[in-house]
Amino acid sequence: MLTQAYAGIDLGGTKILAVIVDEEGKVLASEERATEASRGPEAIIATMADMVTALAQGNYSLLGAGVATAGTLDPDTGMVEYASNLGWTNVPLGGELERLLGVKVTVDNDANAAAVGEWKAGAGIGSRNCVFITVSTGIGSGVICDGKLMRGRNASAAELGHITIDWQGPKCLCGNAGCLELYASGTAIGREASKAAAADPARGKKLIELAGGDAARINSRHVGDAAKQGDELAQEVLRSAGRALGAGIVSAIHIANPEVVILGGGASHIGEPLLGPMHEYLEAHAIEPMRRGVKFVSPKLGAQAGAIGAALMLRSY
Amino acid sequence: MLTQAYAGIDLGGTKILAVIVDEEGKVLASEERATEASRGPEAIIATMADMVTALAQGNYSLLGAGVATAGTLDPDTGMVEYASNLGWTNVPLGGELERLLGVKVTVDNDANAAAVGEWKAGAGIGSRNCVFITVSTGIGSGVICDGKLMRGRNASAAELGHITIDWQGPKCLCGNAGCLELYASGTAIGREASKAAAADPARGKKLIELAGGDAARINSRHVGDAAKQGDELAQEVLRSAGRALGAGIVSAIHIANPEVVILGGGASHIGEPLLGPMHEYLEAHAIEPMRRGVKFVSPKLGAQAGAIGAALMLRSY
Repeated sequence: MLTQAYAGIDLGGTKILAVIVDEEGKVLASEERATEASRGPEAIIATMADMVTALAQGNYSLLGAGVATAGTLDPDTGMVEYASNLGWTNVPLGGELERLLGVKVTVDNDANAAAVGEWKAGAGIGSRNCVFITVSTGIGSGVICDGKLMRGRNASAAELGHITIDWQGPKCLCGNAGCLELYASGTAIGREASKAAAADPARGKKLIELAGGDAARINSRHVGDAAKQGDELAQEVLRSAGRALGAGIVSAIHIANPEVVILGGGASHIGEPLLGPMHEYLEAHAIEPMRRGVKFVSPKLGAQAGAIGAALMLRSY
Repeated sequence: MLTQAYAGIDLGGTKILAVIVDEEGKVLASEERATEASRGPEAIIATMADMVTALAQGNYSLLGAGVATAGTLDPDTGMVEYASNLGWTNVPLGGELERLLGVKVTVDNDANAAAVGEWKAGAGIGSRNCVFITVSTGIGSGVICDGKLMRGRNASAAELGHITIDWQGPKCLCGNAGCLELYASGTAIGREASKAAAADPARGKKLIELAGGDAARINSRHVGDAAKQGDELAQEVLRSAGRALGAGIVSAIHIANPEVVILGGGASHIGEPLLGPMHEYLEAHAIEPMRRGVKFVSPKLGAQAGAIGAALMLRSY
């Protein structure tokens, strides 16, 4: 008899990751392929179905499949309304995949899926109130409150990257002003370091070196590396970004009142030079009974969090 | 046979309001008494029990009672850990009242209770994602996401008055910097108007007049009245507060992704001079698909919202 299992798929702009997981989110099998976005939605959906079918065949009886992806989605119908990374408009992803696989398919936001993955099968296991934040190019997030993922009216809830930390601040691409993402994302860290190094090349020497001689090409990885080697300018940039991240997390704590904050992406790689100032800021600013006892942890599932979470979301439908 | 009903009590620093409601939150009977905080917790709890018993006697069979109150609470045990308005420390309110009434008693945060009241029986009926904000001395709030009140680890979730809108801003009593409450509460409106009128008494003439000749005594009600009469300074102060309120609500929309925002307290009384600039700010700053279709409404239950909500919370336990 075949083992019952769930399939989870993380559909990204460059690659597709498919996993088969058990009830607890343990990965039983996985496969990764290139997305080949240029071949169009139909081909990509067929690839996704192929991957899942091949992984399951002969071993697992699928109870359902979940897809995590970026863009504007309607989770109720499984429709991808708009996804810039794939060039998709109004693609009935859920329905098509359901037809090809013959099981229930759910479609959800990738940050929310990663949050659910880490919460149910990774760093947040056992918690009921859990904030997941991933700092990379942008800032992605998902919030579990009272044992339930916050989804909201169009599954767009918990956009912590786009809460205001300075309402008089610069305009964000989202339309808002002074969004957290403008101060604490990898992009922001790289941009601030570039500006500072270009303005003062002597102080920026180390960073410019790491970026191959061009201040304009300094990115957050260079800043993290230089800071670890004791570079002052890099440490200064990360200190400012870390404090901004702290300001965003203060708001997140005041809103979600969590017991666990999972902090992933570049932030967890850079470590102390970013997280030290963040914790200092939190200690000085968060409401004490709400901050006390909040556990800060790193994610455990790595790049598989989204796929695992997408699979596990099926259990809450 | 007696009609089955719930009791709800709003325990405030100056008065106690008790209501008996049906399943839908319709008020069947109500009574208000002075709190007499100086008589101590035991006497106040006895008064609450008396009020409920008298209201129910001969007419209603109580299925339970809910209490809404300010302060730090443990809703699981019904313990009021600290309530400055009553001078209470570690009062086992829920347990005592349960003993006196002989029915299940729940204890909850007053802003959350008011949010539940308006959501289930007032301006938010039928919605699944609903943000409740009340602007008075401070800014209170409660958030319903996916058909469930956000409570969090210690029932303190959804503190929208204490999200940051300017992380470089002045320190708030809560410990945070640049909290929404510092820019958009009734207290903030009064303070800014006082300052401006004292600095320029000619421009502040109308406001100073309304405050009995003393710029230091200008409050938000004076500012609202003066603005309605066309006073420029008052309109300027409210414009700034309204934009700040908009900034806070942008974050609330980006986090809670609601379909309804219920805006109560002084804000709904002041009306257009505050709400106009707030809506303008929202239109210019909120993520378009998340803002589109959000309905802004005024509360319907008035001062009874907390008591009604406290009673209705029993249904979700």
